[in-house]
Amino acid sequence: MTETHIRLIAPSGYPYDSVAMTRGVVRLREAGCVVDGLEVLQRTAQRFAGTDAERAADINALATMETLPDIALVTRGGYGASRLLPHLHYGALRERLADASTLLVGHSDFTALQLALYAKSGLCTFSGPLLADLGAESCGELTWRHFWSTLTSPASTAAWPGTGSTGIDVQGPLWGGNLAVLCSLLGTPYFPQIDGGILFVEDVGEPPFRIERWLYQLHLSGVLGRQRALVLGDFSHCQPGARDNGYDLDAAFAQIRAVAGIPVVAGMPHGHGMDQLTLPFGAPARLRVADGLARLDFVGYPHLDRPAPAGAAENP
Amino acid sequence: MTETHIRLIAPSGYPYDSVAMTRGVVRLREAGCVVDGLEVLQRTAQRFAGTDAERAADINALATMETLPDIALVTRGGYGASRLLPHLHYGALRERLADASTLLVGHSDFTALQLALYAKSGLCTFSGPLLADLGAESCGELTWRHFWSTLTSPASTAAWPGTGSTGIDVQGPLWGGNLAVLCSLLGTPYFPQIDGGILFVEDVGEPPFRIERWLYQLHLSGVLGRQRALVLGDFSHCQPGARDNGYDLDAAFAQIRAVAGIPVVAGMPHGHGMDQLTLPFGAPARLRVADGLARLDFVGYPHLDRPAPAGAAENP
Repeated sequence: MTETHIRLIAPSGYPYDSVAMTRGVVRLREAGCVVDGLEVLQRTAQRFAGTDAERAADINALATMETLPDIALVTRGGYGASRLLPHLHYGALRERLADASTLLVGHSDFTALQLALYAKSGLCTFSGPLLADLGAESCGELTWRHFWSTLTSPASTAAWPGTGSTGIDVQGPLWGGNLAVLCSLLGTPYFPQIDGGILFVEDVGEPPFRIERWLYQLHLSGVLGRQRALVLGDFSHCQPGARDNGYDLDAAFAQIRAVAGIPVVAGMPHGHGMDQLTLPFGAPARLRVADGLARLDFVGYPHLDRPAPAGAAENP
Repeated sequence: MTETHIRLIAPSGYPYDSVAMTRGVVRLREAGCVVDGLEVLQRTAQRFAGTDAERAADINALATMETLPDIALVTRGGYGASRLLPHLHYGALRERLADASTLLVGHSDFTALQLALYAKSGLCTFSGPLLADLGAESCGELTWRHFWSTLTSPASTAAWPGTGSTGIDVQGPLWGGNLAVLCSLLGTPYFPQIDGGILFVEDVGEPPFRIERWLYQLHLSGVLGRQRALVLGDFSHCQPGARDNGYDLDAAFAQIRAVAGIPVVAGMPHGHGMDQLTLPFGAPARLRVADGLARLDFVGYPHLDRPAPAGAAENP
């Protein structure tokens, strides 16, 4: 059996956390993977992991390289993917990757690329851990297990204590990502038109009023109203400020529940926390909430045509 | 001669800075104005200056009140105007205010209302000082003088040491405001379609990467490319973070200059600083930059059909 081949790509920030990067590579190798593309860990241009041309080339290379990796894994988030959007070879990427089982995985700033690759190339990518997460001092067990189980199966599932709307059973394409990044593409041709979907969002370190303002943008633009459900992931470190006068994240979410016109389900373990699901962007999904439990099933997404490496079964 | 009548409106945050509010009212009264609507200074609901219904009613009342004020002055910024947008009586406001000389003045979060009132009611409002600015411990002389000279004249002008592009002479509708708020309406029906305009933006307390991400959204959405020029106002307290690695506001602006495809002029005294111009949103304007000096002329906007109050000539 050949080994699982992981190639690193770095479309956003430079890897200031080099210890985590190294630990992530070691963990993946110990699990039985071949990891290449490590040169991106040495690239730095201001706050970015290389010049715009270098970072765009990481992605465009997937359209032309002779042997495609099984997984193209994003090193870390930050900011910088927006700059690349006009420079990607969407047609060539669609042609080469549509029937290939190369899985692009990442989140945070990578959301911008996921939106654009879906809108312009029809590609299903994965909102899942970054190399920085897989190499974190304590990489969550759920993160590691769900990464491998989702990527190596034709169907996957997730369950969590779901608060908010209940008695829900809806189906539609699963999509979403980082809320700030998602909204930063509204009004641009890189924002996909997805109707009847299950939209998930997460963010970190933002005051509640900003979270509400972004969710309002999704509401006022009509995007929210066209979905079957909104799923709230992790919103860590989103504390009110000194002048918020009792207004907090719960107040923001209550306002959104009142105006959204669709079910809103909270508590999904996905985002910038230790536990994060690996979710196929654009895949058919079914969301059910009953008796305080939310369950999300998704199927029909590209996946590896080989079993998970031996070490995937062990905790990170 | 009757007195200039100013009515306070509070569409956003509650007035935590009550000393500034009171000082602003006193200053305006001492200058010879009648100031009413002071009840909005007592309204608080969480971080907002009243419930959504109360704050929307401030604006909608302008469509029905018997005696219109000369100036409807916004108390302060913050967040909360987005919530009001679906609740304004755009048709009635257009009908009542189109030929009236009631001037709506404010900035910051008020940008959301300016965009919506222009898009839906065709109203020309003013990006200018808030009551909080006019009541600030040191209200800038320029702020005070330009407020009165613009609002009481059929034409006005501004000049500043303009950096960036030079040899520019362009004409078009003047529009813009707070960058974060402006971008928070992209993709919604409240964002006006303005082509061939002179777009100005400002922001405060944001890291450079966010400023760049918003400007990229204007770029990728095609809004920037459809303008004749981009004018950068104040960007106070927009310092790089610990991991910005040499990337700063200048680097962000350099990137935007490289991709915008239109002249970019910096240094306009408008935003959250002490000195701020009063600018008519949507009015015909001409921008010239030569020999390091930028000059902006604007005409044909609604203005007061009475002279400035006697005290307007004195420094605040």
